Amino acid sequence: MKQENMKLHILSWCSLCCAGFQDVHVMIFIGFGFLMTFLQRYGFSSVGFNFLIAAFSLQWATLMQGFFHGMHGGKIHIGVESMINADFCTGAVLISFGAVLGKTSPVQLLVMAIFEVTLFAVNEFILLSILGAKDAGGSMTIHTFGAYFGLTVTRVLYRPNLDKSKHKNCSVYHSDLFAMIGTIYLWMFWPSFNSAVTAHGDDQHRTAMNTYYSLAACTLATYGMSAVTAHDGKLDMVHIQNAALAGGVAAGTAGEMMLTPVGSMIVGFLAGIISVLGYKYLSPILEEKLKVQDTCGVHNLHGMPGVLGAIVGAVTAAVATTDVYGKGMEDVFPDVAKGDITASYQGVRQAISLAVTLGMALVGGLIVGFLLKLPIYGAPPDTICFEDNIYWEVSSTGHVHTPLC
Amino acid sequence: MKQENMKLHILSWCSLCCAGFQDVHVMIFIGFGFLMTFLQRYGFSSVGFNFLIAAFSLQWATLMQGFFHGMHGGKIHIGVESMINADFCTGAVLISFGAVLGKTSPVQLLVMAIFEVTLFAVNEFILLSILGAKDAGGSMTIHTFGAYFGLTVTRVLYRPNLDKSKHKNCSVYHSDLFAMIGTIYLWMFWPSFNSAVTAHGDDQHRTAMNTYYSLAACTLATYGMSAVTAHDGKLDMVHIQNAALAGGVAAGTAGEMMLTPVGSMIVGFLAGIISVLGYKYLSPILEEKLKVQDTCGVHNLHGMPGVLGAIVGAVTAAVATTDVYGKGMEDVFPDVAKGDITASYQGVRQAISLAVTLGMALVGGLIVGFLLKLPIYGAPPDTICFEDNIYWEVSSTGHVHTPLC
Amino acid sequence: MKQENMKLHILSWCSLCCAGFQDVHVMIFIGFGFLMTFLQRYGFSSVGFNFLIAAFSLQWATLMQGFFHGMHGGKIHIGVESMINADFCTGAVLISFGAVLGKTSPVQLLVMAIFEVTLFAVNEFILLSILGAKDAGGSMTIHTFGAYFGLTVTRVLYRPNLDKSKHKNCSVYHSDLFAMIGTIYLWMFWPSFNSAVTAHGDDQHRTAMNTYYSLAACTLATYGMSAVTAHDGKLDMVHIQNAALAGGVAAGTAGEMMLTPVGSMIVGFLAGIISVLGYKYLSPILEEKLKVQDTCGVHNLHGMPGVLGAIVGAVTAAVATTDVYGKGMEDVFPDVAKGDITASYQGVRQAISLAVTLGMALVGGLIVGFLLKLPIYGAPPDTICFEDNIYWEVSSTGHVHTPLC
Repeated sequence: MKQENMKLHILSWCSLCCAGFQDVHVMIFIGFGFLMTFLQRYGFSSVGFNFLIAAFSLQWATLMQGFFHGMHGGKIHIGVESMINADFCTGAVLISFGAVLGKTSPVQLLVMAIFEVTLFAVNEFILLSILGAKDAGGSMTIHTFGAYFGLTVTRVLYRPNLDKSKHKNCSVYHSDLFAMIGTIYLWMFWPSFNSAVTAHGDDQHRTAMNTYYSLAACTLATYGMSAVTAHDGKLDMVHIQNAALAGGVAAGTAGEMMLTPVGSMIVGFLAGIISVLGYKYLSPILEEKLKVQDTCGVHNLHGMPGVLGAIVGAVTAAVATTDVYGKGMEDVFPDVAKGDITASYQGVRQAISLAVTLGMALVGGLIVGFLLKLPIYGAPPDTICFEDNIYWEVSSTGHVHTPLC
Repeated sequence: MKQENMKLHILSWCSLCCAGFQDVHVMIFIGFGFLMTFLQRYGFSSVGFNFLIAAFSLQWATLMQGFFHGMHGGKIHIGVESMINADFCTGAVLISFGAVLGKTSPVQLLVMAIFEVTLFAVNEFILLSILGAKDAGGSMTIHTFGAYFGLTVTRVLYRPNLDKSKHKNCSVYHSDLFAMIGTIYLWMFWPSFNSAVTAHGDDQHRTAMNTYYSLAACTLATYGMSAVTAHDGKLDMVHIQNAALAGGVAAGTAGEMMLTPVGSMIVGFLAGIISVLGYKYLSPILEEKLKVQDTCGVHNLHGMPGVLGAIVGAVTAAVATTDVYGKGMEDVFPDVAKGDITASYQGVRQAISLAVTLGMALVGGLIVGFLLKLPIYGAPPDTICFEDNIYWEVSSTGHVHTPLC
Repeated sequence: MKQENMKLHILSWCSLCCAGFQDVHVMIFIGFGFLMTFLQRYGFSSVGFNFLIAAFSLQWATLMQGFFHGMHGGKIHIGVESMINADFCTGAVLISFGAVLGKTSPVQLLVMAIFEVTLFAVNEFILLSILGAKDAGGSMTIHTFGAYFGLTVTRVLYRPNLDKSKHKNCSVYHSDLFAMIGTIYLWMFWPSFNSAVTAHGDDQHRTAMNTYYSLAACTLATYGMSAVTAHDGKLDMVHIQNAALAGGVAAGTAGEMMLTPVGSMIVGFLAGIISVLGYKYLSPILEEKLKVQDTCGVHNLHGMPGVLGAIVGAVTAAVATTDVYGKGMEDVFPDVAKGDITASYQGVRQAISLAVTLGMALVGGLIVGFLLKLPIYGAPPDTICFEDNIYWEVSSTGHVHTPLC
């Protein structure tokens, strides 16, 4: 990476790209970082390890993604676009972090990041460059991959005696407020996230607005479902903090396409419903029956909504016509516009991409999970999971709060 | 709202608009949301209901504002500008939320939002399209309207026995710090708020800078007045959190005009003084004599500074001359530039607009207040106002804090 | 400052400038404000006095900087650039605030700001306009100046009996989380800070990316050093909150130059190491031997990394060749490009600038320190330092989390 290479990419240093990058950057460091501070005694680790893994992953991702699709004459070109893509890749690692939160050492997390970033770059290369799929907001590459990779890792790392730390695996009043900082930032900037690497103009416009309406509808669905599924009609902070974001995940693939505002709202509404139901009914089953201990419930926020987003993307692609897209067809589906393939075939490409992503995530997570199971990384014992004290200088009384649970 | 309509508005997808939208969006969701977390046991509701009402209102506002001034051939055009305007309308609803904070159920808030958004759109249409008033930052349409609407609603919903919850209607140490997150974000981005829908270039430049200087002077006035009015010279967090923002409210109408930096600083200085005096002396009188229970003191932050802003706007408009504005006259006062009316008459338009806004807010608030008084919305009893526990899953000990050290 | 002057600067109201300004503004008010909330009983003062001093300094800086390099025909021109520069100057004052945090009254802070802003403007004028040095991100003008000025002030204000407040000069669990909000915002937007006033295009691009890579490497070094220097391998929040930012400080001068990504990472890595070592070993020595009571450790975050940045800048400038810079030479080193001086001589200019800055900071700090020592400003007694209660309305139990009222 010689300095002169930077000059080649000067055209991409436009203010829309920069603004998009900053928004995505805030989502990665503030959004993910604070979203995970909900645990009563794990705030330092949540925001601190998030910071560490992200700072590491974005450097490693720059190299890995550069290796797969940024090489020009033996050199990796860097610029705003590579910085956005590195943040995207980092997002996947942080999703996986959510699944294993509280049960892993920082060394384990860094080892996981090394492998996950690499696999992310391979999967992304297969989807976008070989299969020709579209996935601007990463329903597949980021959310589905990150979630199922992390869920497989946490399955392999299953702790039968995690009950010993159960009293710490819950929030206190102020930790839930810190988490809301993360939620709100993720929610506000998600339209920028999904549209950060789309073609400027019409495309970016449409992607941002589809995401915006999907999120708005998802939020209403989340509040409604949270009240409806509670026995006393009370709202649950876990749902608000997480499920309200599922609309952004679900608009990750089709947001760029002609989903229409009404279509976006339907997708967001469904995502919110699925996500709350997942937290309420599916997560306990996953833990009991499948032994998947998913601390943040990434299956409900990123897993199922990611798959929903991939399916919506495949269907929306399959019904694309030049009547509807006009000249925009060249930006969104260049191969269809050139007549090389039909729209239906583009839909098939999208569906295959989802299958490939799930396969990569499961196999990769399995291998990395067993690697992380080696007793050499200083993982916390079952009795002191969800606890900053083991990795951080905290006075013995410093973090005593009356727990919420 | 068909997707193809989006394409028509592509010219408005400029980076200045986008940046302005993001800043306003942050003010609505983080700024208002966290500003209201100052209450010790109402943080979930403050940021959570703010999130719910905002997500609902911006959708409803898109339809209502679209109906009144975004219709083209039977279709509502959407784009960045409609998104900014929807956030503006949402801002008015959140101001009213501040007046009734802690004493209303989420259903009441949603019903209030339905009617307030509609009335906002009608009032905005009358002011901007029929009367030809200028109000880029919404001193009248947003702040005056939102404040007096909310104050009227809270007057109608007067609770004689609210004393029973008095011990919860106050802050704790950390809740005041959370509220400062809201304050600082509102303060930093207010120049973007006031200039978000002004003409690009000179106009937007001037509006942002006038607001910036107004806020800076207001902040100094607020600190000074807070110390001066205290019996022991101590500063009061309530003043800092709120009155320091009054300079932004007061520059909402005239910010776009040739207020000059010095003029802006005078206006901001006055707004800070009025606002602190309001919190100190007027609010207790309003509650005792007029039975207006104004939880956040919106009368001091939005009501009086909004009226001040409207008056400053009317005076500044009335003294506008082509000598001072040059070609800018066409952007700011097109009817005066065309010679259709005199500058004095524009000032009269502004004054009438203030009167219309006050009338709409009072009558609308009265009707909606009585509607909300119906015993069908699950409003909290007097003994458990300012309390998350009634609407959120919180363990009985969850918000009790014990000494940290 | 007449309004019409604003119109002259309309060309600078570009969206890149605006975005840069907003990022810098967030760093000043949220970044610095919350970074200093780490103290258990000084959160109101940290964020509140930060707000007060910043709102004051940016107005005063606009006048002072305008007087030294913004005068045109007897008038001060204002615009986005003057607003960014005012924020820069404010940054230096806030760095000095970090050194005296908890031991000074608001009146002392305002008096310090009056003099420091003036001296900042003089020093900046000498460096940039007389000596012809380059310092886009302010390693010298902002960080070195602010740190050594503040350290000298705190040396003069030495309190032999500060031990009486020692139990309050520490953090609690949630105050460290609030501080992390500040850290993360400073970290994310530092690339914008260093590149805010560089020439658009290539220059700005390079500056931002060099800073980005420096920060990323610095963060990894900080985590590593924090664990290595602890006796039990635990991480220390003080290091993470502060040292992880030293990479931004150290890239403040050379970031604009051809430092290359690898060079930036080396500089950032060194800065992180130096900073953690400073917190661990040097700060206690400074306090015991030199009687410098540096509350926030600004010597470790701004002092040493600032000097490192100045030296790296001098060396990088001295080895500049047209082969490497191409046409960029005119933007970065105009005098070298014109052939007026050699690159080595530019390096000498940079080195002299560092010496001048240190001299100005030490002499200025000495004078201002003695001025602040006069017993007329209501400084807190030794027994109630690091304590909000003396300047803010807080019930006596209010900061141990019981109701404030």
